[in-house]
Order: sequence, then structure tokens, then C-alpha cells
Amino acid sequence: MKKYCLALVTGLSLLLAACGGNDTAETGAAPAAKKFKWKLVTSWPKNFPGLGHGPELFAQYVNEMSGGRLTIKVYGAGELVPAFGVFDGVRNGAAEMGHSGSYFWKGKIPASPFFSSIPFGMNAQELNAWIHYGDGLALWRELYKPFGLVPYAGGNTGVQMAGWFNKEINSLQDIQGLKMRIPGFAGDVFKKAGGVPTTLPGGELFTALQTGTIDATEWVGPYNDLAFGFHKAAKYYYTTPWHEPGSMLEFIINEKALAALPKDLQKIIEVAARAVNSDMLSEYTARNQEALQTLTKQHGVEVRQLPADVVAAYKRYSQQVIDELVATDKTADKIYQSYSAFYQKVKQYNQLSEQAYYASRDLN
Amino acid sequence: MKKYCLALVTGLSLLLAACGGNDTAETGAAPAAKKFKWKLVTSWPKNFPGLGHGPELFAQYVNEMSGGRLTIKVYGAGELVPAFGVFDGVRNGAAEMGHSGSYFWKGKIPASPFFSSIPFGMNAQELNAWIHYGDGLALWRELYKPFGLVPYAGGNTGVQMAGWFNKEINSLQDIQGLKMRIPGFAGDVFKKAGGVPTTLPGGELFTALQTGTIDATEWVGPYNDLAFGFHKAAKYYYTTPWHEPGSMLEFIINEKALAALPKDLQKIIEVAARAVNSDMLSEYTARNQEALQTLTKQHGVEVRQLPADVVAAYKRYSQQVIDELVATDKTADKIYQSYSAFYQKVKQYNQLSEQAYYASRDLN
Repeated sequence: MKKYCLALVTGLSLLLAACGGNDTAETGAAPAAKKFKWKLVTSWPKNFPGLGHGPELFAQYVNEMSGGRLTIKVYGAGELVPAFGVFDGVRNGAAEMGHSGSYFWKGKIPASPFFSSIPFGMNAQELNAWIHYGDGLALWRELYKPFGLVPYAGGNTGVQMAGWFNKEINSLQDIQGLKMRIPGFAGDVFKKAGGVPTTLPGGELFTALQTGTIDATEWVGPYNDLAFGFHKAAKYYYTTPWHEPGSMLEFIINEKALAALPKDLQKIIEVAARAVNSDMLSEYTARNQEALQTLTKQHGVEVRQLPADVVAAYKRYSQQVIDELVATDKTADKIYQSYSAFYQKVKQYNQLSEQAYYASRDLN
Repeated sequence: MKKYCLALVTGLSLLLAACGGNDTAETGAAPAAKKFKWKLVTSWPKNFPGLGHGPELFAQYVNEMSGGRLTIKVYGAGELVPAFGVFDGVRNGAAEMGHSGSYFWKGKIPASPFFSSIPFGMNAQELNAWIHYGDGLALWRELYKPFGLVPYAGGNTGVQMAGWFNKEINSLQDIQGLKMRIPGFAGDVFKKAGGVPTTLPGGELFTALQTGTIDATEWVGPYNDLAFGFHKAAKYYYTTPWHEPGSMLEFIINEKALAALPKDLQKIIEVAARAVNSDMLSEYTARNQEALQTLTKQHGVEVRQLPADVVAAYKRYSQQVIDELVATDKTADKIYQSYSAFYQKVKQYNQLSEQAYYASRDLN
């Protein structure tokens, strides 16, 4: 019976196709059984806490929601393309999609950091609001359109720590000539302050720090920093937040690969990304404090604060970096107008809401 | 040709079914075309900003992701069941699912407010982390299990404002005998402070305030409060946050209705809820400040702060309310142990991250 049926099914499928009986759009019938297998390249070590969990969770959501019609294989940095080869890899079709951070593409798209995190900019909750209930996502789509890529918000680390240093920072003088891994606009700010910024993939930071190729590095926060073992290669952990107040990750999809999917699978991708965007922030929020305890209590890490005059200088330089960019780049100017107007509003409201609430709950 | 094909397709479908060619689980082929039509009842006016947009967006996500196999009709409060009839309506099958807030069920489930918001408790980001990356969701599922209901996080309003008052609050003395709409544990706290709390659905608040049935009401924040026009019925807008620092909404689903869905549709529901949970917070974050400007600049609303001794008293009473509950209710005790342990950790970490960042960005 089975064999007979198989032949029958094969033959009939052709007939059915000729009849147009499989056309979802026309009949509203069950989605076509066509299966898609995608590759997803990332800028992180495979399964890295937070950053690497995001794309795995995304693949799982999509697989289950699509009933197996779209399966996605996730690759760690360097497995298929290098950590910083994600943008070009997806662009040229080496993979249908990628997971990374937009500020890594600052070299080719100067305005890209607005869609990850900028120094003294919006935090996670504020940035999500601009992206999905302001003009953020439309501007981001427009920015990536010439590259044949479609971006989606793909997670958030929350507020990041200032970083790991092998030199004490007691004043701006200590920044002079300091070699630090610090990407995005924050790198430009660090340069204005007298430092020497570099951008290296996460997986290369431990060795760079240990060998003295760099004197300092920022990465994310306790949960991620513990996973890389930076406490074994650096003396001081400065926590004072300034440079990445809520770093949004990105899913980027090859425009043609996306267009080849039926509408229901396109929507599944959009909503899965939206869910992961929130899940990742929850993961960091849930795990950071325990990791910090491990760092301080088990590994004797000393938590330090940057001097106020260093933070104040960073703040001044941050505005200069943006002013210089928008003066020379029309696209950046257009994006910043939107970002800035939105930010002024949410910042004011947060003084009455989130910040006022922290004051209420800290009351004794 | 068309007519001939239709007959052919019908006949062949039976043959194919006999061959088992349509069995998703065995073959991994396209999901069965069986269609489901669900009703979703809510505690809000149809399409109410934020709260009411959440379930509409959910229905849209599910409809599009399922290729029309699961369509959901959303009902406003009172259309199918009363605002506070959502829990029982879904329980007894009047609707397959609902959208509401868990603290409305405090009368039958004393521990339920932990899954919406509690005075001086976790904010939206912290609560999301406990629910999805702590024990929160499992405890919530356990709590609703005896009622045949499955809960999902279904949005968040963010920090709520203290509320609208027709009497000035200059000291605890002004709370004595004050009739205020304030639900959840916050109502118990208000009672301990000498007030008279009531729980009314949102749609009844304006009239209750205008007729003097109540002297004061909290609702959500500027975006929602403007929509109800409370500024036309109350004199003072107190913003000081204390009672609902990040109110999580809920989707509740009838257990049997959920079990009757194929696995892919079950997953579509889960992920759509996860996305809406984040979207709603973004909507509030994006819209509150403009609404506040409209209230203050167009309608002359005066924003006021509660006196510090009133907030301090509320804080003491809040701990008493919880202590008394957990002393008499084992389930509440178990949930609070988890909530409290998680809260202590994220609170400490936020002092180094979110709160420290607000300090950095406010630096001049």
C-alpha cells in the first residue's frame, strides 16, 4: 500500500499543481509544503551566553512555528564567515541571514551605530520604543536597502559596563595612549579623549588583553564578561555606564531570500525576531547579578567607578562626535533628527516614571 | 478546466488522506488545513490605546503567522462578558482566551497580583526577566492550573502614575476616608493608610469620579489617562510612582482549547504573546510624554508629587500587606520567596547599571 501510494502522490502532485490547487494566496488553503533551509551566520562564538543564545532561540521559534517548513542552522563566528564578515556574507548570499550588531558596519555605513547603541544615548526600553513605535525601523530599513539587506531588532544587552583595564583610571591623563577595544561612536569618543580605540571580535579579546596588544576592553557586562574570563587577563573592572546604555543586536536578512518565502513564513520571522529582541534582555537582566557575585566573591574582582571628570569629558566628546558626523553625512543627520527628538521626549518622561520610581523604592 | 480540476482535487484528497499523506507529525509535511476561529475577551474598551491594542496586535500576528488557520476575534469589555468576567468567561468556555490583568482575580486567588504588579516591586524589565528567565512563568502556570487556564505574559504598561485626585494630598491625614479606585495589593496598602479602596473597571472610572462615587482613581499613565479624559473629572494629577512600577498584562487561554490546537499553532500563540508583551511597553514608552504635554499644556493639568512621608508610609504598609498574606497563604509564600530572591538580585544590579546610567547621562 505504502509504495503504491507514494507513486500515486507523486503523480497527483503534478496534476494538482497544474490545477493551481496549491495556491495559498488564492484559496486560503493550508500553506504550501515547500521547505526552506537557511543558514544564519553570527559574530559570536556558537551558543555564547545572551548574544549567541538569541539566534539559537530564534531558529527554534521559527522551526516550531513553521511546523518544520523553515529550518535555520546557526553558525558561530568563523565557522562559515569571520565574525565581522556577517554583513557581507549575508549580502553576497553565503548565508540567508545573520545576527550581529549594526555598529560593526560603521566603516561602510557611518550612521549605523544609531541602531545598536550610542554613548549617552537611549537605553533598551527607550530604543525599542523608537525602533517599533517611532521612525527607527523605517530609517534602519532605508539605510540597509542599498545593500540588499533587511534588518530587524534582534536582542538587547541592557546597560553595559565601562570595561576591563590593566591600568587604573584616575583622571583623563590615564586615557592618553591607552589601547582599548571599543567599537561604534564610543571608539571615536575614546579617541578624542586621547585613547587609541580598536575594534576586535569578542573571541579575540582575551588573548589581546593577556598579550598586551590592548590595555583595556569593554565587552558587555558580568554575565558575558565572566564567560570570556576577562578577570584572568585584566586587573580592574570599571562599571560606570556611559558608552553603550542599551545595545541592540540585529538580525539581517538577504532581501531576495526573504522575498522567496511565503507571507506566513515572512511574518513568522518578523514576530520571532520581536520575541527574541525581548528575551535576550530578560536573559541578561536575570543573569548579570549572579555573574557579578561570582566575579567579586569567587575571583576577587574589584569593582571601580570612573572619575566624574572622565565621564563628563566623554559626554562632551560624544556630542562632538555626533555633531561632526551629522555635519558631513546627510543620512546620519536625518536619522539623528529622529533619534534626538524621540530621545528628548522619553528622557523627560523617564524622569517622572522610571527614575522617580527608583527614588521611591530606594526611600528609607 | 477549473471545474474538472475541482472534482479531481476533491476525489484525490480522499485518496491522499487514505495514504496518510496529510499526517504532519509523521511526514513533516505542510500543517493540516483545519481552521480554528477563536474568541478573545478583554477587560478594556475595544481598541483602547495600549491595553486594547495588545490583543488586536496579537490576533493580527497569529492570523498572519498561521496563514489564516487560526483567526481570533477580539471583544471589548462588556461585549461578550463583563470587564471582570474575563477569567470566568475563559474558564467556562464562553471564549477560548482572554486579555486582562492578574491582580483583578485577587478575590479568588490571593497570590495573583505577583504576576501583574505589586507596590514597590519589580519594574517591567525586571518582571519580564523573572517571568521568562526565572521561575515566574512556571509558578504562574501552577497557580492557574486548578482553573483550567494557561497564562502568558501579555504586555506591560511600564511605571504607572499615582493617580487623579479631587482632594490635595499634603499628608497622611488627607488619605483618611478617601474613596479611591486602586486594585491589587496597592488597594490593601491604601486601606492600611486609612483610605477606602475599590476596584472598578476602567470604563466606569470617569463617571464614578465625576459623580463623586470615588474621590480619586489611579489608572495607568498620561497616554491612557488622557484617553479616558480624567482631567475633566479630577483636579490634581499626582505622578509619584509607587503602587504599580511595571504592570504586566496577561493572556489567559482555556487549557482544552489550547490542547486542541496543533503544535505549530500552540507555538505561534506563545511567540505572538511574547512579542506583544514587549510591543505594548514600547507603545507606552513612545506615547506617554506627548500625552503628558497635551495634559499640561492644552488642558492646564498640574502635575504634583506625593509628600515623602506618604510614600514612606505606603512602603511600610506594602511590606506589612505581603507579610500578612504569606503568613496565611502557602502558595503566596512560595511565590513570594521566588519573587523576592530574584528582586533582591536585579535591584542590586540595576543600581550599578540602569540607575548608574541615569546618573551618568544627567551629569552636567
